[in-house]
Amino acid sequence: MSTPDDLTKMIKEMAVRARKASRKLASLSTAAKNAVLQDMSRLLDERRSLIQVENGKDLANGRAKGLSAAMLDRLELSDKVIDSMIQGLAEVTALPDPVGEISQMAKRPNGLDVGRMRVPLGVIGMIYESRPNVTVDAAVLCLKAGNAVILRGGSEAIHSNLVLASILQEALAGRGINSDAIQVIPVTDRDAVTIMLAQEEHIDLIIPRGGEGLIRFVAENSRIPVLKHYKGVCHIYVDSSADLSKINPIVLNSKVQRPGVCNALEGLLIHRDIAARCLPSLAAELHGAGVELRGCPESVRLVSGIVPATDDDWGSEFLGLILCVKVVDSMEEAIEYIEIHGSQHTDVILTENYTRARRFMAEVDASAVMINASTRFNDGGQLGLGTEIGISTTKLHAYGPMGLEELTTRKFVVFGDGQVRE
Amino acid sequence: MSTPDDLTKMIKEMAVRARKASRKLASLSTAAKNAVLQDMSRLLDERRSLIQVENGKDLANGRAKGLSAAMLDRLELSDKVIDSMIQGLAEVTALPDPVGEISQMAKRPNGLDVGRMRVPLGVIGMIYESRPNVTVDAAVLCLKAGNAVILRGGSEAIHSNLVLASILQEALAGRGINSDAIQVIPVTDRDAVTIMLAQEEHIDLIIPRGGEGLIRFVAENSRIPVLKHYKGVCHIYVDSSADLSKINPIVLNSKVQRPGVCNALEGLLIHRDIAARCLPSLAAELHGAGVELRGCPESVRLVSGIVPATDDDWGSEFLGLILCVKVVDSMEEAIEYIEIHGSQHTDVILTENYTRARRFMAEVDASAVMINASTRFNDGGQLGLGTEIGISTTKLHAYGPMGLEELTTRKFVVFGDGQVRE
Repeated sequence: MSTPDDLTKMIKEMAVRARKASRKLASLSTAAKNAVLQDMSRLLDERRSLIQVENGKDLANGRAKGLSAAMLDRLELSDKVIDSMIQGLAEVTALPDPVGEISQMAKRPNGLDVGRMRVPLGVIGMIYESRPNVTVDAAVLCLKAGNAVILRGGSEAIHSNLVLASILQEALAGRGINSDAIQVIPVTDRDAVTIMLAQEEHIDLIIPRGGEGLIRFVAENSRIPVLKHYKGVCHIYVDSSADLSKINPIVLNSKVQRPGVCNALEGLLIHRDIAARCLPSLAAELHGAGVELRGCPESVRLVSGIVPATDDDWGSEFLGLILCVKVVDSMEEAIEYIEIHGSQHTDVILTENYTRARRFMAEVDASAVMINASTRFNDGGQLGLGTEIGISTTKLHAYGPMGLEELTTRKFVVFGDGQVRE
Repeated sequence: MSTPDDLTKMIKEMAVRARKASRKLASLSTAAKNAVLQDMSRLLDERRSLIQVENGKDLANGRAKGLSAAMLDRLELSDKVIDSMIQGLAEVTALPDPVGEISQMAKRPNGLDVGRMRVPLGVIGMIYESRPNVTVDAAVLCLKAGNAVILRGGSEAIHSNLVLASILQEALAGRGINSDAIQVIPVTDRDAVTIMLAQEEHIDLIIPRGGEGLIRFVAENSRIPVLKHYKGVCHIYVDSSADLSKINPIVLNSKVQRPGVCNALEGLLIHRDIAARCLPSLAAELHGAGVELRGCPESVRLVSGIVPATDDDWGSEFLGLILCVKVVDSMEEAIEYIEIHGSQHTDVILTENYTRARRFMAEVDASAVMINASTRFNDGGQLGLGTEIGISTTKLHAYGPMGLEELTTRKFVVFGDGQVRE
């Protein structure tokens, strides 16, 4: 590809072909979709060495460019990562097919039966960064929900993404399915993203996954609806009536189990009446796990080793072993703090008080609100969706983890026997 | 307001105040919402003369500007129109409150109970054209669903819209509810719309209602999600196995009952095997009702009085007494025609054949797909939503008529007793 016009033409043609492929996918039977998913599993297993040769090119380029060890690790398609892609495929194959389900059927006074039938969205655009396994995870979820997908991964994973897509396309073709259902954009400059985001006639939904910079770029440049979350600034409020034995395990798990992810804990709010009883032992355990605590004056007074927080700390997404701590006078103050500093991702109350549990659950505006549980449960798999394609912290269409159902919509179906409107 | 900066500041402040009001609305009880809706009914009834004085200013301005009789008619708040606003209010009051409903509760293997709680979207922006009764209809639907609303009606209805909003605000204030929950933008130039569409921090959803020009302007300039339909190009396919006695009543009702609305019929497709039997009598009835028929060569051959259609006719939204007629060789041809010329609004099959009924329903991509019923049923009230705030022909969030439920979203709620993630 040489000129911007060529690039625009190529991406537009890909989108038109995806739209065409999506029309057939929409009426594919569950059995046909599961058969091709099983073929994909088998082919990924058989083509390990091919995958690893192509992945090796990305790794070599990455090393030459001086990527960090962590980034190279995310880029690598080791046997273990390939195993987990195959395992993911088996899980998606086993999930119930949402397409065609009719719900809310009701008879109208004039005898019409009115219901809603779940149908695919059409064409999904996935824009993501380094991890090439997203190519397979996202493609198979879109396929199972009857959608075509256009994938745009990071430039550092381009060889890996292209070989993975070619294997998935081979499986499609082997079952007589239009292989345009799964396409990878083969061009790595950012113009390709901008052009993709302008194909509102042919792409129905954009899902970006990656750092806040990428997601803001996508949100600001897209003419297509975007489902996204910028960040996860998750909070736990420890109520005055919290069960002391539950506090430390839940807070530790929320903060420490995997601190670099969006559902990790970033802010801890403790009611004044329980702070002196719980904070010293909790801080000791957190310090023991390597967590730096940055607190309000009251928490600094209660526990030596908590350092004073700066204004910038409140509401920060640390994605590491740092935690903000604030003593509050009431649940109302905690809810107000979360409204200001939270990111509508995951907020938790620890309490044994029935009325406050009910009020917190009703009043806190987040994609997942929890009572007496770890923030880490805000995840499609953990919440029962089977698997997820992303998490939305905006409210249109989906709020929270998005699984197969969120990759579909519902049309009205009306069964009549001659009715006309009065 | 004099400078663009002033205008931007004013609209931004309105949006911030709406956001603030929406926080309290979200946890208002159903009883409290219904009480204020009843007060609104009473006040609208009591203030008829005030409403009609203000409406009179709009009518006088409209006459001076030379508005058509039809536009003046839509603008007028006659006693009958006020009665119907009051009736609409009573209907919304009687509808079940969607907010707080918890569904899909299920126990996870680790004992967590996970469900989804319906919550308001937050702040809705309504952008509409001449009819001032939309001010009341939209505001009360948004209120019942727990949302604040910012209304931007047409310049020709500004006095009417402002007086109606002031009455609704008086009812809010009388019940101690922040009257910023319902606001009308008092400025009539189009810059106000553009500024409103940039308040993505404070407005969650834009619903435009009006002509295609307005809707395209909104869709192209909005940084906020937009739920919309551009037009309704509705089709009926008369299958070879259609019941002859059902054809004329359904086609006539779909075309003639109210030809100027989006769910009126615009294209008729007839299977070749039944065309000679049904088209002459159907065309006679349509001609008798004043409908001009524009057809394919085969239909022109079958019925004198059908004029040849031009290329532009296929897929046109006539919004009047004109209908396209095409003879097709198969249901597949009809479905393909609808895919090309339809607008994903409403498509109907007339058939007694079970298998084709099932296939048409599954394969046609429209917000409402119907068997043996009039296209005119694609309407929130007719389909059982109680009332509607608009119709969406895009698939994100809502597809088809949007009622109270579509003005809400669902967050995940998780009830634990100390669970942590493995």
